[in-house]
Amino acid sequence: MILSALLTSVGINFGLCLLFFTLYSILRKQPINADVYAPRIVAEGKNDQSSDFNLERLLPSTSWVSRAWNPSEDELLMCAGLDGVVFMRIFTFSLKVFSFAGVVGLCALLPINYMGSQIFIDFSDFTNKSLESFSISNVNDGSQRLWIHFGAVYAFTAFVCYLLYVEYNSISLKRLAFYSSSTPKPNEFTVLVRGIPKSPTDTLSETVEKFFSEYYPSVYLSHYMVYHTSKIWKIMNEADKICKRLAYLKSTKERSQRFGRVGFLGICGPKVDLVEYYERKLDDLEEKARLQQSLLHGKELPAAFVSFKSRIGAAVALHIQQGSKPTEWLTERAPEPRDTYWPFFSASFLSRWIGNVVVVVACIVLTVLFFIPVIIVQGLTNLNQLETWFPFLKSILDITFVAQVITGYLPSLILKMFLKLVPPVMVLLSSIQGYVAQSQIMKSACNKMLWFSIWNVFFANALSGSVLYRVNIFLEPKQIPTILAVAVPVQATFFITYVVTNGWTNTASELLRLMPLISSYMTRVITTKGDEEELEVPSLPYSSEIPSLLLFGLFGITYFFLSPLILPFLLVYFCMGYIVYRHQINEGIALLVMLFVYKFSSVTVFLNEGIAQNDRNGPCVRESYGIGPCLLNVYSPKFETGGEFWPIVHNSTVFSLILMHMIAVGIFGLKKLPLASSLTLPLPLLTLLFNNYCRKRFLPVFKGYPAELMIKKDRRDENDPALSHFHEKLITAYQDPALKPIQFSTRTDSHNSPLLASQT
Amino acid sequence: MILSALLTSVGINFGLCLLFFTLYSILRKQPINADVYAPRIVAEGKNDQSSDFNLERLLPSTSWVSRAWNPSEDELLMCAGLDGVVFMRIFTFSLKVFSFAGVVGLCALLPINYMGSQIFIDFSDFTNKSLESFSISNVNDGSQRLWIHFGAVYAFTAFVCYLLYVEYNSISLKRLAFYSSSTPKPNEFTVLVRGIPKSPTDTLSETVEKFFSEYYPSVYLSHYMVYHTSKIWKIMNEADKICKRLAYLKSTKERSQRFGRVGFLGICGPKVDLVEYYERKLDDLEEKARLQQSLLHGKELPAAFVSFKSRIGAAVALHIQQGSKPTEWLTERAPEPRDTYWPFFSASFLSRWIGNVVVVVACIVLTVLFFIPVIIVQGLTNLNQLETWFPFLKSILDITFVAQVITGYLPSLILKMFLKLVPPVMVLLSSIQGYVAQSQIMKSACNKMLWFSIWNVFFANALSGSVLYRVNIFLEPKQIPTILAVAVPVQATFFITYVVTNGWTNTASELLRLMPLISSYMTRVITTKGDEEELEVPSLPYSSEIPSLLLFGLFGITYFFLSPLILPFLLVYFCMGYIVYRHQINEGIALLVMLFVYKFSSVTVFLNEGIAQNDRNGPCVRESYGIGPCLLNVYSPKFETGGEFWPIVHNSTVFSLILMHMIAVGIFGLKKLPLASSLTLPLPLLTLLFNNYCRKRFLPVFKGYPAELMIKKDRRDENDPALSHFHEKLITAYQDPALKPIQFSTRTDSHNSPLLASQT
Repeated sequence: MILSALLTSVGINFGLCLLFFTLYSILRKQPINADVYAPRIVAEGKNDQSSDFNLERLLPSTSWVSRAWNPSEDELLMCAGLDGVVFMRIFTFSLKVFSFAGVVGLCALLPINYMGSQIFIDFSDFTNKSLESFSISNVNDGSQRLWIHFGAVYAFTAFVCYLLYVEYNSISLKRLAFYSSSTPKPNEFTVLVRGIPKSPTDTLSETVEKFFSEYYPSVYLSHYMVYHTSKIWKIMNEADKICKRLAYLKSTKERSQRFGRVGFLGICGPKVDLVEYYERKLDDLEEKARLQQSLLHGKELPAAFVSFKSRIGAAVALHIQQGSKPTEWLTERAPEPRDTYWPFFSASFLSRWIGNVVVVVACIVLTVLFFIPVIIVQGLTNLNQLETWFPFLKSILDITFVAQVITGYLPSLILKMFLKLVPPVMVLLSSIQGYVAQSQIMKSACNKMLWFSIWNVFFANALSGSVLYRVNIFLEPKQIPTILAVAVPVQATFFITYVVTNGWTNTASELLRLMPLISSYMTRVITTKGDEEELEVPSLPYSSEIPSLLLFGLFGITYFFLSPLILPFLLVYFCMGYIVYRHQINEGIALLVMLFVYKFSSVTVFLNEGIAQNDRNGPCVRESYGIGPCLLNVYSPKFETGGEFWPIVHNSTVFSLILMHMIAVGIFGLKKLPLASSLTLPLPLLTLLFNNYCRKRFLPVFKGYPAELMIKKDRRDENDPALSHFHEKLITAYQDPALKPIQFSTRTDSHNSPLLASQT
Repeated sequence: MILSALLTSVGINFGLCLLFFTLYSILRKQPINADVYAPRIVAEGKNDQSSDFNLERLLPSTSWVSRAWNPSEDELLMCAGLDGVVFMRIFTFSLKVFSFAGVVGLCALLPINYMGSQIFIDFSDFTNKSLESFSISNVNDGSQRLWIHFGAVYAFTAFVCYLLYVEYNSISLKRLAFYSSSTPKPNEFTVLVRGIPKSPTDTLSETVEKFFSEYYPSVYLSHYMVYHTSKIWKIMNEADKICKRLAYLKSTKERSQRFGRVGFLGICGPKVDLVEYYERKLDDLEEKARLQQSLLHGKELPAAFVSFKSRIGAAVALHIQQGSKPTEWLTERAPEPRDTYWPFFSASFLSRWIGNVVVVVACIVLTVLFFIPVIIVQGLTNLNQLETWFPFLKSILDITFVAQVITGYLPSLILKMFLKLVPPVMVLLSSIQGYVAQSQIMKSACNKMLWFSIWNVFFANALSGSVLYRVNIFLEPKQIPTILAVAVPVQATFFITYVVTNGWTNTASELLRLMPLISSYMTRVITTKGDEEELEVPSLPYSSEIPSLLLFGLFGITYFFLSPLILPFLLVYFCMGYIVYRHQINEGIALLVMLFVYKFSSVTVFLNEGIAQNDRNGPCVRESYGIGPCLLNVYSPKFETGGEFWPIVHNSTVFSLILMHMIAVGIFGLKKLPLASSLTLPLPLLTLLFNNYCRKRFLPVFKGYPAELMIKKDRRDENDPALSHFHEKLITAYQDPALKPIQFSTRTDSHNSPLLASQT
């Protein structure tokens, strides 16, 4: 690729980013977008602001940047939890790494590359210059200057390992500090038991009761059996939608809207009073749900949430094999109640094992099928091939600008669109594996997505040969360094455009919240649905964001000494990402706070009503809507893993380093400097040793909590008068919301439903 | 190799075996060998039997075979512990596997191989026939008969996996039953804590005391700090030798023997009263040892044995991370007191980690260096090459018999002698890794030895090319099946002779106890040392025996469909081994029983004396000599892992199966039956899945014990009045013998010393 094509791509994307930022700073001041950028205004019914027109509203501003800068890490920790902090740490870590790499690469390596004469360069036209003259390919074979590259590889590895160690250490300390300072949480006292053996005389529930009261008489508190409730969940979700619709209909002032057709898409069928219609429908659903509940009686799954009186009691049940048969009485960490993924249950050991095997196969199939879009993308970068396929395009493709757009922009855009489809699939696959928590599913999906994108974005594009050719490389390990060394440097410009199109634009559109914005406009134009639909709590999609960040890290690390030109683009990306995500997290928190204030006020009304109506019903509903535990934790996102995403970051960085070493071995060999090639060989081994040390030194902290801390926390709680109250709450904390007394009653305040929805 | 050379080798070894068996059945009746085959006669002083000469003593008999047959597995379990049972299970498992393989191989595959015509055969002379006509190489390319081989591979894999599952299941159940029926043992109540953090105010011992009495107030019992006592151990071993010598001198009737020279090798120097000389020397050593003990004061290592009042208490400390820092308060399973390997201490996390890295490197270096003898051995099988190297041997090598001995016998004999040197090195390497128990060292050495011999015996000989060529194969995985398929079948005869020379003869000489026998004669001829030196407790050398058994299993599994001719030889080997080892274990037990009766009687005398002499001293010495715990466990060997060797057997068998599948893929490809080659590919995957399932299903049982059982045992103990007595003993169970009050007093009974020696 030539420089001008790259510049086209950079120009387009830079323009897009500026446009997005400007649009954001204007749009967020428009009341009509309040439901996208500040749902609280809609929620509090102050929608009539729209009349106060002034000029300032139409001018772009940068105030949001300073708001993103302000909060300290401690404030972030308070608000977004440790996961948010770890997420932001990926940015600071990458910034440190690539600042060092940038200084070394741009000041030392780039001039050396440029001074070489391996590749023929036409000095007459700077913009038509091949970008390869900035890459290591341009250094003359056997040149002693390559020793500077060699030194840079060693220095960079040492620097990254040092940073990795410091970060791992600091995050593991933060994790422990976060744990010891947190208030009691139900998941600290609870374990999930699966594989409860069937007894000929007792029910499963009795078996659990007997087992734990026999072996843990002093610490066992209670247990909750698990049922297959997906049918009830379906009914509840449906009822929830109707509730929202109903609430909107009731709140609307125009009576005409209360009448409508209820047939296909609301077009055919007789006109009826919609309020009456929906209320009748709700009653039907309520009856159906109650029927389903009664059918479940006696049909427990062999799994239960078992709660203990102390953390150490739960830890004992968790860490020590319980039953003699390793496939029975399997214990695992219980998720937070709000984090529980209810429709999980493949409860038996064997079915989960099979599920895992199936998922591995499915991942491989998905990866193989994904070759198809990748090949299409690679076809686009090769204009001649495209002209052969579609000869009628020849005239258009001859226009320089079109050609530049197609080679510089279109390929990575298409790849990006296909990649967007993958994370949900990975989440789905992970949920089949039998995880019980959304956080576990996210972590697993994050890992899957990471390896998927390394393979399908990095390798598939870097090697860019036929499918067979690419599989072959792993059957000839000796050839890998050489093959990589030949193929990878050539693709530098593709990855630079990838950073620019995917990284920059993604970040900017994340700020603009492009999709919710568009869908909000679409909804408003097409349907007559209520605004409440938009009131979804934003939470960071770790499973798609972390892999993409790490993928950019991989690009930077591998291309650092091959083609340092990528580094400034990456630095811009990480800077932009740092500010935007800090802003989004804060904004998310602000939304959550507002949402909570609003929900809580209305729910309190509803609860009081509820209690007045039905004494037994009240507290149950209160629990089920997550208000009990939520009161303490409202600022944090959907779940809190306590920084368990960091080991993924660590492993991925170590992998990137080793990949870089392999390429270095190949490159030095190709460049006829065999001594440097051999001297690079110890580097991956040393890196692996470093990784092994870190695994032993830090990983245990991320797998559990030390007895010392647990016992200290238990002691502190013992003196706390609130403990018995907490134990009471603990008993019902893990009740499946679908099993609680059901009441979709039309008399309840409509505002309760979204909270219920947020639990699903 | 031709049939006659194989027959020569088989003949020689069959003759040797017969000779050994006959010799054994005669020699064991000779009173002069009593110290080798039945030390009890020597021990009880009934040495004067030698006069009763009769003819029967000179006739071979087979009574020992029936004695080996008699005991049931339960009796074996009672006597030899679960490790002995597991060891014998390897034989029965192999017998089952190779009986099936033998039937299929000899009835179905061998005739098909023989009927082929791929290899030119000279039908005129049967004995000169190449053995390859019995191997798969003889089947014609593309022959449909290969589908029978294909079917056999599938059927055999299914059968072996079924057996593996059944055995794993049965052994895991036995392990649990063995645990729940055993009496309380100190190691069940104790954990070893390493990485005790230094405190500015307290000593290490106080730190441990504080930590455990704070966090485990109800179950913590006591702790024992660990010191570097290797110097004292050296002195104690020296003193022990002198004690024995002294006892012999005292017991001898001839006064002339009491005087001798004490200079170099007892040849020079003045003649002195040896009894007096040694007694003086003992006093010196005693003083030296006490000085060393006093020097240790305050120099504890950051490691301690911490004992708890209940098994579940110890298990909690064991399984849950204790300190916040994962490199501090590291807990691990305590070994049995008699099993403890005292000179272990690389106590810090970092030094152990470095030790592990060093050992991995050392293992690789050892494996590489071992190529040298292997190349020599391979040179011997190639007569022409030998003649080129040593032209003067030409005339001798031309004699058919000599040539047959050299090609058929010598190579594997030399290999065997070199292999004999490796297990001690592996044990040494494992001991550097920081294991605290001899059993752990044995297990680790067993694993190392297994992979070492698979690589250096199987691969190095099968591939038999240059060193470079052999390393290269693993850098081109795609080529592995083809390379193996070309190289492995050719070496069938080498491995048959290996089975015959190594397997058969080893087993027979194990029965004859050739080495102890020779050394006993040598001692008697050369020195005037006492017979007590020979009274060592025989224990099974798992770390060298299990790998060699598994290696034979690997031969059988890989050659099963290539060259079924190996199977009868293997079956003979396993049958012979089964009987001989059953006999040896029983004999070993008999020896132990006798030894114990004899020791115990004399030690009781000594103890009573000791107590009379020094009240404080008595019980300590009693503990240190292992009589307390040993009283309950005298029948078992040096340690009891509870069957933890089985997973090694399982993994090795699975590896052998997969190796067989890879060769099958290659062979079917070579034989131009690509469909069969592709259809074999799922087999290794299925086997790996099976292995993965077994790991999850059974392995946890071998890593620890379930809470259910531990709590049950604890409850049972609570009602036992002996518990408080046991707790008292537990407090001192883990005292380093080198730290106990030292008394090499000459007045003590000499017979106590060997038991002390058996603890080192």
